[in-house]
Amino acid sequence: MISQLIEKIQKTKAPVCVGLDPMLSYIPEHIVKKAFEEYGETLKGASEAVWQFNKEIVDHTWDLIPAVKPQVAMYEQFGIEGLTVYKRTVDYCREKGLVVIGDVKRGDIGSTSAAYATGHLGHVKVGSRTLAGFDTDFITVNPYLGTDGVKPFVDVCNQEDKGIFVLVKTSNPSSGEFQDRLIDGRPLYELVAEKVVEWGDQSMDKGYSNVGAVVGATYPEMSRILRKLMPRTYFLVPGYGAQGGTAEDLRPCFNEDGLGAIVNSSRGIIAAYKQEKYKDFGPENFGEASRRAVMDMVADINRVL
Amino acid sequence: MISQLIEKIQKTKAPVCVGLDPMLSYIPEHIVKKAFEEYGETLKGASEAVWQFNKEIVDHTWDLIPAVKPQVAMYEQFGIEGLTVYKRTVDYCREKGLVVIGDVKRGDIGSTSAAYATGHLGHVKVGSRTLAGFDTDFITVNPYLGTDGVKPFVDVCNQEDKGIFVLVKTSNPSSGEFQDRLIDGRPLYELVAEKVVEWGDQSMDKGYSNVGAVVGATYPEMSRILRKLMPRTYFLVPGYGAQGGTAEDLRPCFNEDGLGAIVNSSRGIIAAYKQEKYKDFGPENFGEASRRAVMDMVADINRVL
Repeated sequence: MISQLIEKIQKTKAPVCVGLDPMLSYIPEHIVKKAFEEYGETLKGASEAVWQFNKEIVDHTWDLIPAVKPQVAMYEQFGIEGLTVYKRTVDYCREKGLVVIGDVKRGDIGSTSAAYATGHLGHVKVGSRTLAGFDTDFITVNPYLGTDGVKPFVDVCNQEDKGIFVLVKTSNPSSGEFQDRLIDGRPLYELVAEKVVEWGDQSMDKGYSNVGAVVGATYPEMSRILRKLMPRTYFLVPGYGAQGGTAEDLRPCFNEDGLGAIVNSSRGIIAAYKQEKYKDFGPENFGEASRRAVMDMVADINRVL
Repeated sequence: MISQLIEKIQKTKAPVCVGLDPMLSYIPEHIVKKAFEEYGETLKGASEAVWQFNKEIVDHTWDLIPAVKPQVAMYEQFGIEGLTVYKRTVDYCREKGLVVIGDVKRGDIGSTSAAYATGHLGHVKVGSRTLAGFDTDFITVNPYLGTDGVKPFVDVCNQEDKGIFVLVKTSNPSSGEFQDRLIDGRPLYELVAEKVVEWGDQSMDKGYSNVGAVVGATYPEMSRILRKLMPRTYFLVPGYGAQGGTAEDLRPCFNEDGLGAIVNSSRGIIAAYKQEKYKDFGPENFGEASRRAVMDMVADINRVL
């Protein structure tokens, strides 16, 4: 699967992914109003607004980008109706030829991780049939439970040609609280990185592994070390833009050849029309504003590669 | 919320919770067959079988126990249809007066954790209304992202009188890979435990905190230390029975007064009819077998308290 992602990155010349993390407050009033008129101020109404918003963004950006990353929490907050729109978004993006990275950060004991892997990447056996639950291309995985909590995801990657990104060093302010603590003189995130390499060796796909790593853009000096520790691991890099990471901060996440990382931006793209820079588009043309923001982001990142 | 759980534990004299983690292979053939006849070999058919199975178990055990713990992964594997049955199970158990612990192990950066907290414990604002997604009483939370990934859950606990159990030391074989690594001479799980106490201080509810800890039954010597480090933290203890933990292993999880922990059993209860010990009940009476298994488990644990 990672080779497919790389192919799309090379084709679009855009090592970026759009984070489809809609909050109701990002969605222009005309869309929310229409959805509420149709379904009322209900979870279904809110979810319909999210869907119409997502569709417009995808329709205006799909030809520029290799991948999207819907954050499932933003859908789960609306319960079943929200998750139904998560699935609809995943399916729609895959129809458009986009690689879909489900940002679900699952992880549990072995048998439970196996069920998550089945639900998000694989197929479940129902009588004589095998059926898919969410069927994303990649998901993000939390490593706190160790190898037997991650291994079932790797197994499904091999069976179904899918991929995962394991949390190594996250982009949030308190990520260092546990991740940076020294163990035998080295931070925990380096130990996790070494395990990611070990897990990844079991699922190589041409030059890179289907087992990638989440490495926040907000800590460039750490990215440099992690890049060396994990030369064949693709990085999913959150934290660009709204969270404070700059293009210069991203450079260490990439290998010399310009491969090795895909940078996510969520709010900076999907709520672009709210920024001073793009406000002339107006809420009616928020999709166009997002398209322009993607073009600017791609140019900004390619500038440092 | 923790005071409500304790009250129910005292009333039932049963510091146990039943893990509603159904696998299709646990469900008796007559139930699966009926569900497939009605809905075909589909995700809906499988989910219907899960629902009928759950309902029978709950109907046969609700009066003996304070709480249930559905593992959401087992439902997510069947996609939207599965999650619909997760919600139906949560709602049904709450109607029966049970405390529901959603075993979701969520955790992310602040804004994302806030969305998870909203979806599973709180209410989301939709226009002029506030609506609930899953509305469980407790959920489990992964601490790998540190304080700003956990704080939004604590906030919702305070706003809505709900609770969480944060992963400290999990029950799986490779849990030590990261959790046991020494930092300044002390294992990582002890540092997490100290943070759990700090977070918990912000949400006290009578004698205990709404911020509990997941502490596996499989490592009794560690439970003893954690009990001392976290005197006012309730422990959710997985790993009893099928995973190998015995009643004697559990003793250190409890305080002197017999409070301080609730022990989960999943397979050992819900698939009891498959055990040699309960096989005389037969698949038709699997609910009765589960009831007997709960009674045996309660007696076994009370024996050491």
